[in-house]
Amino acid sequence: MSGDRGPRVCVAGALEALRADPALALVLVGQPGVIEPELGALDDSLRSRVSIRPASEVVAMDEKPREAIRRKKDSSMRVALNLVAAGEARACVSAGNTGALMATAHFVLGMVEGIERPAIVAAIPAEGGHTYMLDLGANSAATPEQLFQFAIMGAVVAADLGARSRPRVGLLNIGSEDIKGHELVQAAHRMLQSSRLDYVGFVEGNDTFTGAVDVVVTDGFTGNVALKTMEGLAQMIAGALRSEFSANPLRRLSALGAAAALGGLRKRLDPRRYNGASMVGLAGVVIKSHGSADATAFAHAVRVAGLEARNGVPAHIGHELKSQAA
Amino acid sequence: MSGDRGPRVCVAGALEALRADPALALVLVGQPGVIEPELGALDDSLRSRVSIRPASEVVAMDEKPREAIRRKKDSSMRVALNLVAAGEARACVSAGNTGALMATAHFVLGMVEGIERPAIVAAIPAEGGHTYMLDLGANSAATPEQLFQFAIMGAVVAADLGARSRPRVGLLNIGSEDIKGHELVQAAHRMLQSSRLDYVGFVEGNDTFTGAVDVVVTDGFTGNVALKTMEGLAQMIAGALRSEFSANPLRRLSALGAAAALGGLRKRLDPRRYNGASMVGLAGVVIKSHGSADATAFAHAVRVAGLEARNGVPAHIGHELKSQAA
Repeated sequence: MSGDRGPRVCVAGALEALRADPALALVLVGQPGVIEPELGALDDSLRSRVSIRPASEVVAMDEKPREAIRRKKDSSMRVALNLVAAGEARACVSAGNTGALMATAHFVLGMVEGIERPAIVAAIPAEGGHTYMLDLGANSAATPEQLFQFAIMGAVVAADLGARSRPRVGLLNIGSEDIKGHELVQAAHRMLQSSRLDYVGFVEGNDTFTGAVDVVVTDGFTGNVALKTMEGLAQMIAGALRSEFSANPLRRLSALGAAAALGGLRKRLDPRRYNGASMVGLAGVVIKSHGSADATAFAHAVRVAGLEARNGVPAHIGHELKSQAA
Repeated sequence: MSGDRGPRVCVAGALEALRADPALALVLVGQPGVIEPELGALDDSLRSRVSIRPASEVVAMDEKPREAIRRKKDSSMRVALNLVAAGEARACVSAGNTGALMATAHFVLGMVEGIERPAIVAAIPAEGGHTYMLDLGANSAATPEQLFQFAIMGAVVAADLGARSRPRVGLLNIGSEDIKGHELVQAAHRMLQSSRLDYVGFVEGNDTFTGAVDVVVTDGFTGNVALKTMEGLAQMIAGALRSEFSANPLRRLSALGAAAALGGLRKRLDPRRYNGASMVGLAGVVIKSHGSADATAFAHAVRVAGLEARNGVPAHIGHELKSQAA
């Protein structure tokens, strides 16, 4: 239980998810003295679905992944992942240090057989729904084989989180013609063309938002830049909207009249509805909640974890990988 | 004179720029029978600053660059670039096929001495001004040396287009710590750290919009994805705003009240104010106007061309490259 906002927000979010899902049970990992007081208001039936597992340490947000693995053997992150490895929990959700979570999860859980590298996948808002993009930064580069595996993993997550049973997969490039791009995307393109996936071919950055594909595949460098570019632009536009609607008293008055429409816009683009990135390729379900997530956002990450656990995403990935190779 | 909207829009945009800049003279290259009628309304003093140079062919928007060079020797694009090479024009502005324009310009003008690869740079809206980003897709990959040269070229363009005399340069990465990213950005980072540029270090995708840097350097693959991601997200948000403000009669009424604020937002983010990407590294000023640009947008691209020609951007780049090596 960590993250930029501290454990209380995570507990509140986890309880929000618990109330919404009668089949969910929680193991809250951290300092019991901090967690226990947050559970006081729960009625007995809810309380019976919550247990606490002590962990004395916390991985700092700026801690080096290798150091976290070596030294923080009783961190909440490590203890939670141990529970998944032991089969005592079916998923781990953390708002902590992304690099340390990925490295520790890799160390504790291992990989799905045949998958070379884990990847980070998350939903991006798009026309009529959302698009799943990966890799969002687990790796700083990718081979064609790895891009191919990302496509398989992205398709599994999209299907299991409800996009459609045969998700349409696109490979991010700087043009949609077959001849575009560097040799890595060219080689991955050929592999995907002869795969059993519903591969639509190359897509460009703007296609992420049109609903033309369900899964956008790229290397972790490009994906991370694209994701942070979206975050930066959305923040700038939100700031510009606020500033325009508060420029003078008349504008502030017009903002009152426009409250319904502006609220609708905010709701559509609310990043909390997209919180919860999956670390796929690991032999267990691990969901990263944004470090600055509030309780509602954290609850969404827990919901994603529940869906992935029930659908057995790691086993599903292993199955799809074998069936592609067959 | 071409582009998706045809030559008339380009002529109208060029004339808009002509009216705004008394020191500007235009050579309109294309079919005189199409251009001439558009000039009818000009008074004598304006008309005296406009000449027409015939070109019988047009490079199609989907034509292969190599074919354009080989076969379209009397295309408007080729003739215009020949004028720059001959010193009869000081800049070429085109709304045509980007790949063909870059390849033909490379062929006709050659490169600034010492520059390995041309790059595409454009202004991106940011808090309190804009940020210049390159490469936006002239190349599908870049070596550390090329990234270093992109940084020099970006700093020259930012300075000459008025950002500040010593632009702050950032290298795009997936984290700001020194250890992040793949070996190409690591090697470029070390080169930039020991350069004479005002190098601020690694930046992330969201830093493009905060005004923290004037120049964002990246390879053409990542830059193109980032640019198209911005375009796609901005379009989706604009669509969502329209849809929220037209959801019912009350919302439509509130849009009237909010017209001033919404208009202000539109103006801030108007892509026409950012039209005109520079193809830098070439031994001549070449500006690419967006294929779908209207007259106002095209006029902005002509203004960018004027600024770059007056500041002698290609010579300035050559000078900076030498001074960095010295």
